[in-house]
Amino acid sequence: MDLEHALHDGGYATLTEVSGEAAMAKLETEPNVRALITDINLKNEASGWDVARRARELFPDLPVIYVTSVAAEEWTSQGVPRSLLIQKPFAAAQITTAVSQLLNATKAVPTPNPSKANSGSFDQPRS
Amino acid sequence: MDLEHALHDGGYATLTEVSGEAAMAKLETEPNVRALITDINLKNEASGWDVARRARELFPDLPVIYVTSVAAEEWTSQGVPRSLLIQKPFAAAQITTAVSQLLNATKAVPTPNPSKANSGSFDQPRS
Amino acid sequence: MDLEHALHDGGYATLTEVSGEAAMAKLETEPNVRALITDINLKNEASGWDVARRARELFPDLPVIYVTSVAAEEWTSQGVPRSLLIQKPFAAAQITTAVSQLLNATKAVPTPNPSKANSGSFDQPRS
Amino acid sequence: MDLEHALHDGGYATLTEVSGEAAMAKLETEPNVRALITDINLKNEASGWDVARRARELFPDLPVIYVTSVAAEEWTSQGVPRSLLIQKPFAAAQITTAVSQLLNATKAVPTPNPSKANSGSFDQPRS
Amino acid sequence: MDLEHALHDGGYATLTEVSGEAAMAKLETEPNVRALITDINLKNEASGWDVARRARELFPDLPVIYVTSVAAEEWTSQGVPRSLLIQKPFAAAQITTAVSQLLNATKAVPTPNPSKANSGSFDQPRS
Amino acid sequence: MDLEHALHDGGYATLTEVSGEAAMAKLETEPNVRALITDINLKNEASGWDVARRARELFPDLPVIYVTSVAAEEWTSQGVPRSLLIQKPFAAAQITTAVSQLLNATKAVPTPNPSKANSGSFDQPRS
Repeated sequence: MDLEHALHDGGYATLTEVSGEAAMAKLETEPNVRALITDINLKNEASGWDVARRARELFPDLPVIYVTSVAAEEWTSQGVPRSLLIQKPFAAAQITTAVSQLLNATKAVPTPNPSKANSGSFDQPRS
Repeated sequence: MDLEHALHDGGYATLTEVSGEAAMAKLETEPNVRALITDINLKNEASGWDVARRARELFPDLPVIYVTSVAAEEWTSQGVPRSLLIQKPFAAAQITTAVSQLLNATKAVPTPNPSKANSGSFDQPRS
Repeated sequence: MDLEHALHDGGYATLTEVSGEAAMAKLETEPNVRALITDINLKNEASGWDVARRARELFPDLPVIYVTSVAAEEWTSQGVPRSLLIQKPFAAAQITTAVSQLLNATKAVPTPNPSKANSGSFDQPRS
Repeated sequence: MDLEHALHDGGYATLTEVSGEAAMAKLETEPNVRALITDINLKNEASGWDVARRARELFPDLPVIYVTSVAAEEWTSQGVPRSLLIQKPFAAAQITTAVSQLLNATKAVPTPNPSKANSGSFDQPRS
Repeated sequence: MDLEHALHDGGYATLTEVSGEAAMAKLETEPNVRALITDINLKNEASGWDVARRARELFPDLPVIYVTSVAAEEWTSQGVPRSLLIQKPFAAAQITTAVSQLLNATKAVPTPNPSKANSGSFDQPRS
Repeated sequence: MDLEHALHDGGYATLTEVSGEAAMAKLETEPNVRALITDINLKNEASGWDVARRARELFPDLPVIYVTSVAAEEWTSQGVPRSLLIQKPFAAAQITTAVSQLLNATKAVPTPNPSKANSGSFDQPRS
């Protein structure tokens, strides 16, 4: 997949989930997430807008990048602050630049917000 | 009221509504809105987060400023892009500077987004 | 006049010229200019776009603000870098905030660019 | 050529013209342009400053990057708003970062401005 | 004094100290500071550069504004990140805009950094 | 070394010094430096904070990037204005994006500040 390949080339490791629900579950149990890249229209109920809101509840400073071919105009009302939206089709360099730029603008490593996390979820994967 | 007084001193006219629901109704019938300033915890159901999302659906480039004493930490997940959050208590100059700065960064007068508005609502007040 | 009144209230002194040609002549003989505010459609030939280009030749870091009711869409192709465009009608606070914000972002007092000025023009008004 | 090679490596496709006049003609007939990179001193009459102004008339939000070894100081008076100037010699990464950063800051795919285009020119190459 | 008058007009309260040493002592015992405005050349040993560094150790997100007529060129090597430098003479609006702009860009009320404060100093004025 | 490899891949050449003292000596004799990347905790006395301050005295507009695993929280009080801090571990793309972004935001090639340099040091390596 192009997007992951671009990130690996830039030195990033990636975790991929097939639905918004799975991504949100992963965010709750994975303390080492450094950025979220999400499509808007996902399998099942949750949209990329939902995933990003949940991600920011858990990691208040998390860089968020939306990629979409159809929902760009909703960003102004549905996106989170300080996020970027990249329209498809995109070039590989847009993705690595976006992630790097947002990470470099973050003063510190995003830290989990314990008050919003499910109890214990950062130590043990959920069953 | 301090906030309105500050805006009038800066040369702005204001429209005030007592609930989020009333503010959203006003936004649908009032084509000349240039910025939204909203508290987070409002009378009734709708929060300031809801009002701002609806405002941006109607006016995609509308400057949005949240003022709050209790909900600042939710801004990162609930705020709209390119918005500002001002914590209470604030100084009058913070409000006029925030509105002016966001207006000056907007390339053009915010224009209603006709596809999202209720039919006819920009010409006639709703009953 | 509203615009000048707003600037005086903010602690600024103003020089006003009635045409683009007069403004450009003034810029060449006046070393203490700190910012330019110009309408686009001016008396005579020169437009506000022309005045701003000449001003930036003379003072490379000069804050530039355009105010206009009719030519806003031309800013993207005719404006100078790091300028602001304010649409009429505007509130007084937009003007003082714009000038202050641009001045505060300038690292040093704008200095005349001697290589572009007419010889001797900073000491003596031109005949 | 270094610049094009850098862009291709970043996942971008390029169109190259040998003069400013040819570039401006291409811009009028090519609706899929996403960014302009131009030298300042070009063959024939038109300069890079001219090409960028024409490009922005046609595509108001188009990312514009100037590359030059000799004319950098003119950018402040001759460049278009929200453009970048890269001095020669440059590193490949400067070009891909500049294009990606400007594209990612653009809310939507740059769309042609039909009112400024020659009639019909977006459908058929000009003879 | 002009600077304080401008701030009071904008709705701000001010604390003034006559030396850098006194300002640093005040910062250690005063948890409600929201911004620092400092001249560079101060009475006694400590400079404005020193005061700002100490202020940021105590309040990591504190807005910092330097005002100076003589030391502007040192800002690039001696200033703290995300600070502003305003050259004297300045207009009143520059000060209120600078403070307001920096406060509005701060996500939360600046909180004291307890690990850097002297023990107990936030509860009791020092003798 | 990862960091240098990333820069070379992006088209940059690098000079490496093993201590802060050596880096500062190099900066005084090397007029072609375009950016500084420094760790905070260095061999010997001088820290990365010291190196960056000296670098900015010599080259007022020099892009500065700090990389560190332990001293990130000191950046707010010890960093220079308009610098970036990248936390270790970092991805290669963060470094090339950071350097490129800061270089592209600099209006001109950083020029040595002759008044701060040791006499003659830009022509001849020091003995």
